[in-house]
Amino acid sequence: MYRIGIDLGGINIACGLVDNDGNLVCKRSVPTFAEGNDGAAVAAGMVNAALNIIGENGLEESDISVIGIGIPGAVDRDRGFVIRTANVPLDGFDLAAFFAERTSVPIRLDNDANCAALGEAVAGAAKGVKNCITVTLGTGVGGGIIIDGKIYSGFNFAGGEMGHMVTHLGGRLCGCGRRGCFETYASATAIINDTREAMRQHPESKISELVGGDPDKVNGKTVFDAAEMGDETAKQVVENYIVELGDGIVNYVNIFQPEVILLGGGIANQGEKLLVPLRQYVGTYSYGAGLIPATKILKAALGNDAGIIGAAML
Amino acid sequence: MYRIGIDLGGINIACGLVDNDGNLVCKRSVPTFAEGNDGAAVAAGMVNAALNIIGENGLEESDISVIGIGIPGAVDRDRGFVIRTANVPLDGFDLAAFFAERTSVPIRLDNDANCAALGEAVAGAAKGVKNCITVTLGTGVGGGIIIDGKIYSGFNFAGGEMGHMVTHLGGRLCGCGRRGCFETYASATAIINDTREAMRQHPESKISELVGGDPDKVNGKTVFDAAEMGDETAKQVVENYIVELGDGIVNYVNIFQPEVILLGGGIANQGEKLLVPLRQYVGTYSYGAGLIPATKILKAALGNDAGIIGAAML
Repeated sequence: MYRIGIDLGGINIACGLVDNDGNLVCKRSVPTFAEGNDGAAVAAGMVNAALNIIGENGLEESDISVIGIGIPGAVDRDRGFVIRTANVPLDGFDLAAFFAERTSVPIRLDNDANCAALGEAVAGAAKGVKNCITVTLGTGVGGGIIIDGKIYSGFNFAGGEMGHMVTHLGGRLCGCGRRGCFETYASATAIINDTREAMRQHPESKISELVGGDPDKVNGKTVFDAAEMGDETAKQVVENYIVELGDGIVNYVNIFQPEVILLGGGIANQGEKLLVPLRQYVGTYSYGAGLIPATKILKAALGNDAGIIGAAML
Repeated sequence: MYRIGIDLGGINIACGLVDNDGNLVCKRSVPTFAEGNDGAAVAAGMVNAALNIIGENGLEESDISVIGIGIPGAVDRDRGFVIRTANVPLDGFDLAAFFAERTSVPIRLDNDANCAALGEAVAGAAKGVKNCITVTLGTGVGGGIIIDGKIYSGFNFAGGEMGHMVTHLGGRLCGCGRRGCFETYASATAIINDTREAMRQHPESKISELVGGDPDKVNGKTVFDAAEMGDETAKQVVENYIVELGDGIVNYVNIFQPEVILLGGGIANQGEKLLVPLRQYVGTYSYGAGLIPATKILKAALGNDAGIIGAAML
């Protein structure tokens, strides 16, 4: 038996055939055609993507135990129902009913970030781990909670908002309406803004040199590159970022004491450059540090495939 | 069949006979005699307390399915082993072996705060709820995490340190070595300190009147009483406390989206006086507020019995 995983995005529908151990056998991507279309069009795109990949691999629907779908938004897992989405027109759409009319394979839904967290726990950097927290450092800070090998998202399926934990009460305004959310200090957006501010204050720094003086060219990597070149201004920004990220991660250690915390998203691509000082910070400030076994902090391994694999393994 | 629950404290061993539905049938308290004694003496006190309550109720050991013990510290649940305690001499003590030599009833261990959280979820204010977070506002801020009706404490049994989440990065120094922990702003100790400071700055306030000008007489209730008398200084302290407590609670809502968050400890005795403005704050700032079913915020119901009942239900 195989499984199908679909990672639904605003631009593409990524669809994969996955075996029961969470190995990605084959994947395809087709446009979502979200703009100007209704939910049925997007849903039909997903059905077709699933049926095509089954046919392409010489399989029948009866060879597939489940089609799992990661949705960019909130879903009712029990009813196979989309509650609210961001970039696709599926608000209130009954995906379970739509699929049931077109295929005999049962579907399962979850939030896409939760699917990615599950993918990493099943077949990625946290493979075989029972309890794992994923923190994704992208435009915002997202993530997911795996407890006992399963996605945990609370009674209303909306938990695991890892970026919306206030670490600076009264601090920076967050898109969620609060002030001081972790996301406003630890996301790629945050470090880009902090890099631009440092560049403005220190036009002599290597940061400026690296982007030819153009703040618009600053990305999440710029300040790490400048710091590696020995630039003091950049080092200060990175050091401060380690504290901001580190304190958020320590919070999650103290709450969950998971075997593993995984970092994903663009900033995590800094790899050990980021992880070495981060581990030292977390190892110093975690509750009971040195007295109890410590949470491992690792880089997520599967990239964009995590969402497909996790959806398939729902 | 019945169960025995023991809540081990530095002063007393509280022991109860509990039925399989979590009802406390009978309880007794004996001194711990922790001071100057070794682990064996304290453990023997617990064995005797358990055997006495069995005999007193005309029962045999064979009528008891388990003796559960809540330990003020860290335990290895799997091995029945105490890792580290605060006020009792049981560091490294093998309670499972000690009990096995003296009774045929198997024992189970967990941290005392976790047991109290479980007690509330089994038979208290969160009865029948699958996912519940307990936050205890006492000398520090403690608590516990119940997921799927069971205690969650991570792979090293040390999770659920609800007070040691930084909400003010770089803020007040915490006993855990970090700065800005929730505990340093939301505990009874914190509000007492804040009350004293307000009293110093505003000697004309009702706060001063209530304690006869003596800062040592300030307790966790003082400022709420003064606020109820219409005192502006006290109202300000309470309002600020609601923000501090509220933002921490919103963090827990955004992470866990549990059915229920329970408040325990001395400050929770303010009841609806505290809960009404707190619910409004949490209802305003929680992620997805108004769009998804909301977490209920309630006062813990079982008081000190929660620890006994939870231990029995381990």
